[in-house]
Amino acid sequence: MTYANQLILDGNAVADSIKARLETRIASLAERGITPCLATVLVGDDPASATYVRMKGNACRRLGIASIRVELPAGTTTEELIGALRKLNEDASVHGILLQHPVPHGIDERAAFEAIDIRKDVDGVTTLGFAQNAFGFADFPSCTPAAIMAILDYYELPIRGRHAVVIGRSPILGKPVSAMLLNADATVTTCHSRTEDLPAIVRLADIVVAAVGRPNFVRGDWIKPGAVVLDAGYNPGNVGDVGYEACARHASAITPVPAGVGPVTIATLLKHTVDAAEKLGA
Amino acid sequence: MTYANQLILDGNAVADSIKARLETRIASLAERGITPCLATVLVGDDPASATYVRMKGNACRRLGIASIRVELPAGTTTEELIGALRKLNEDASVHGILLQHPVPHGIDERAAFEAIDIRKDVDGVTTLGFAQNAFGFADFPSCTPAAIMAILDYYELPIRGRHAVVIGRSPILGKPVSAMLLNADATVTTCHSRTEDLPAIVRLADIVVAAVGRPNFVRGDWIKPGAVVLDAGYNPGNVGDVGYEACARHASAITPVPAGVGPVTIATLLKHTVDAAEKLGA
Repeated sequence: MTYANQLILDGNAVADSIKARLETRIASLAERGITPCLATVLVGDDPASATYVRMKGNACRRLGIASIRVELPAGTTTEELIGALRKLNEDASVHGILLQHPVPHGIDERAAFEAIDIRKDVDGVTTLGFAQNAFGFADFPSCTPAAIMAILDYYELPIRGRHAVVIGRSPILGKPVSAMLLNADATVTTCHSRTEDLPAIVRLADIVVAAVGRPNFVRGDWIKPGAVVLDAGYNPGNVGDVGYEACARHASAITPVPAGVGPVTIATLLKHTVDAAEKLGA
Repeated sequence: MTYANQLILDGNAVADSIKARLETRIASLAERGITPCLATVLVGDDPASATYVRMKGNACRRLGIASIRVELPAGTTTEELIGALRKLNEDASVHGILLQHPVPHGIDERAAFEAIDIRKDVDGVTTLGFAQNAFGFADFPSCTPAAIMAILDYYELPIRGRHAVVIGRSPILGKPVSAMLLNADATVTTCHSRTEDLPAIVRLADIVVAAVGRPNFVRGDWIKPGAVVLDAGYNPGNVGDVGYEACARHASAITPVPAGVGPVTIATLLKHTVDAAEKLGA
């Protein structure tokens, strides 16, 4: 069954609507002498990570948000990274801190995340931030999960009572997006590498979120006709976790890659930085 | 289809095995001059809550664990309750703090939970404790979810790859048990009052956890033949959330009420109190 009036969920449109609502807020902050500032921290020389960090800095600049780029060599120790994060915590001109992940092997990523002041944890990576999100009162849910929710909201796709199947259980993606969908009254199934008969479970879903990090992992015949498909994957070569052509044949609405979840994630990061600047007020 | 060799999951046997392993640890602490001590805090005069608190105190006494009972009147304010909890945080003779919930209306339960020092949060009610559990490194997961996992472990019931359906999404039961089953490699579906066609979803489950707080809510024809059924409900009149007779006909293993999850929850609380005493060491 092919959907005739199929909806391509345009991430750029969602991102533009988020950014448009930030403009007056950034102008109000400017009147108070405050420029929202995002600090990005990049460890090592992974080219993809460097690209993401550059994209985030560019997005800040276009909107009048300042950004600071901290770049640390691949051999950085956990202690050194934590020291750099603490300096950013203490820097009153910095409102948001983003540690680009994954960090190189040998660094305790969880310990590094925990070092971020929760008031500046604009990507929701701290343990406490995760729980606040799971309980529905976080200031800053992780950006990609929040972006997925923003897309559903923008396109007025119903969540309450729907069965959402999330493929992936990472602390910054699968787990928090499962929690957010649950708090929005979806029935939520979280799947992962140990799930038996994954296709059968995905076929139950009204909403599919792919967050596996494997290119074209989700196949067309896994998609229940009319399901909404959100692809949080971003693999080398601009390829998502969803086999787009095949899945688009069955879905009633689907995010492309690129120009799906990605730009909304960046817009969410900018929004959180402005939120943090307003709260910290300095 | 009826299961001939059906297993009644005997909570008292599981509780006894947990308590038996505590005895030498309590003796070692005694040699160091340390008596593990649980403080229970009861607000108001709900008779069921008073009974639970008394049961917990009695269980402590039988094992050589000290207990302190703090009883506050129904009109206690959030600030007064927080003040009482802070005193227990500072009291070096107290190793574990249990705030009996639900607290009366008018008290901010979440704020009260947060006031408990995480090192003494033996029921895993703090936001941070929840997240540590969701990420798999909590010292003290909430006692009832931990009890459910202990029962599965004691009876060597497999979890990995199985489909677990949790009915309920409370911060101290449905959400943490979902997280623990997920971390044990189950595929986990969390259901709640907004779930559409709940019976059809429960019928998918290899493992059913009922945590709704409604007597005899789960019906026999919801249970897939051979499923494992765990009843975390404890309603007035010693009635669980599972219609026991009807569900037992289909389940391969099932917890009764009483003498199912309840005694294991208390044993887990005692274990956490001993864990805390060893860690705090005073």
